[in-house]
Amino acid sequence: MRKVKVGIVQQQISNDVQENMNLLKKNIEQCSAQGAELVVLQELHNTLYFCQAENPTNFDLAERIPGPSTDFYSQIAKEQKIVLVTSLFEKRAEGLYHNTAVVFDFDGTIVGKYRKMHIPDDPAYYEKFYFTPGDLGFSPIKTSLGVLGVLVCWDQWYPEAARLMALQGAEMLIYPTAIGWESSDTEEEKLRQLNAWQTIQQSHAVANGIPVISVNRVGWEEDSSHQTAGIQFWGNSFVAGPQGEILAKANNKEPENLIVEVDLSRSEQVRRWWPFLRDRRIDFYNGLDKRFLD
Amino acid sequence: MRKVKVGIVQQQISNDVQENMNLLKKNIEQCSAQGAELVVLQELHNTLYFCQAENPTNFDLAERIPGPSTDFYSQIAKEQKIVLVTSLFEKRAEGLYHNTAVVFDFDGTIVGKYRKMHIPDDPAYYEKFYFTPGDLGFSPIKTSLGVLGVLVCWDQWYPEAARLMALQGAEMLIYPTAIGWESSDTEEEKLRQLNAWQTIQQSHAVANGIPVISVNRVGWEEDSSHQTAGIQFWGNSFVAGPQGEILAKANNKEPENLIVEVDLSRSEQVRRWWPFLRDRRIDFYNGLDKRFLD
Repeated sequence: MRKVKVGIVQQQISNDVQENMNLLKKNIEQCSAQGAELVVLQELHNTLYFCQAENPTNFDLAERIPGPSTDFYSQIAKEQKIVLVTSLFEKRAEGLYHNTAVVFDFDGTIVGKYRKMHIPDDPAYYEKFYFTPGDLGFSPIKTSLGVLGVLVCWDQWYPEAARLMALQGAEMLIYPTAIGWESSDTEEEKLRQLNAWQTIQQSHAVANGIPVISVNRVGWEEDSSHQTAGIQFWGNSFVAGPQGEILAKANNKEPENLIVEVDLSRSEQVRRWWPFLRDRRIDFYNGLDKRFLD
Repeated sequence: MRKVKVGIVQQQISNDVQENMNLLKKNIEQCSAQGAELVVLQELHNTLYFCQAENPTNFDLAERIPGPSTDFYSQIAKEQKIVLVTSLFEKRAEGLYHNTAVVFDFDGTIVGKYRKMHIPDDPAYYEKFYFTPGDLGFSPIKTSLGVLGVLVCWDQWYPEAARLMALQGAEMLIYPTAIGWESSDTEEEKLRQLNAWQTIQQSHAVANGIPVISVNRVGWEEDSSHQTAGIQFWGNSFVAGPQGEILAKANNKEPENLIVEVDLSRSEQVRRWWPFLRDRRIDFYNGLDKRFLD
């Protein structure tokens, strides 16, 4: 048995960055007190989801890595002796910014970072304005608890990303995310969107025979440009086992911490019965790195 | 609007091939009478699932394509003026056999075939003994109703197969399949397997923004080698829309025909809102045609 206690922090965010960080610290400590060894935060947890509008002033929210935020979370990881997955707005150079996940080990050291590779851009999610697509590729991060396939939000729709992580030995897939409903959509459409989001991430567990951890923000946030009625982030953070089975799921309205035990030794058992990696037709996969095969 | 009425035939099979074919004919006609323009049959629908044991005599069940079975189904397609997706045990040469889907157009002509690419082999599913892995690759089949991404059973676990079909313009994914429960598994395990099977196929709809049609056999079949207690094929044939939403689903115990209207024009709408194809990081997907990245 190789059990890992996972803590996930689903949070509602205010426009006071320091208050958000203090609240996150309190929640991480609470997870740790309940035995969590690995704690995962949602996407861009320090701030409101500023991508609802294109505003150059928002680049002031970005910081260097390492920088003040990594110092802050490093200290927490060290104090609590946990592996901690964070999601930050990275200032790499003047005019060059990334959406970057940073992972800390038990001793507070940065053991790896992942720059979001797939960048969305659709009404109310203007991320292509803010984030340069990652140039680090899909590389799992080695920690004291195992090898983590850390991806971010829009990456979750791409089976290619999950597969590349698994082929490099990732033992878990981790998605900090920020997704929600537009108020004008029908209830049926909202349900289809939520189900699609959960289904595609469960499917990465199934296809690769490894657990998936997805942490989403929650609560309503205003569109500062007032072009839309804002986003109701839908929570529903969850942990799935290596057959895609839901082990635990948070609610869709309120902040919530979840503590979930994941047995990493089950993955090999699942892969022995369903040996998908054995049968991949790599001799016929050569079109996958093309835009379209027309 | 581009609506297609799909008929799916979920069948229990006996050891009398002629009886099976007559029953399938009756069911196809029934679907057609209810307006179905596209009818999909389950995997290896003419016979029992003979792969439960490795027995060279079973190769007698294979036939040439074209051959008696394609003549039979061609005639039905022509009479009913439908597009028909069948699944046959192909004898390509002495000692060379495939698991092959054959598609007929309104006029009864064979418009394409697909040789199963991913071949499973696990206790009670000894397919590697019977089926040479396909060498036609992943090529969608053009029909009067649209471009069909026909895949077979074990292919359903591979996002790569679905993606390659979509990149070549497939407007629907179609999976004839034969999967069931081993009697010694717990109820929890059975449910995990069924959900994983449904989830991974729904995810192909989500990832590619196109509908998925999956037709499974149903009912218990004996293991002729008596090594196991046989397979309870779990039915649950279904049709999902381009967000992975279930449009219709058959029961898990009995033969059943389903008639489902699929609106192909919805796919473009879904892809406009969730433009996943736009953002694929093809500049970093080059490891996908490797066995493992170690």
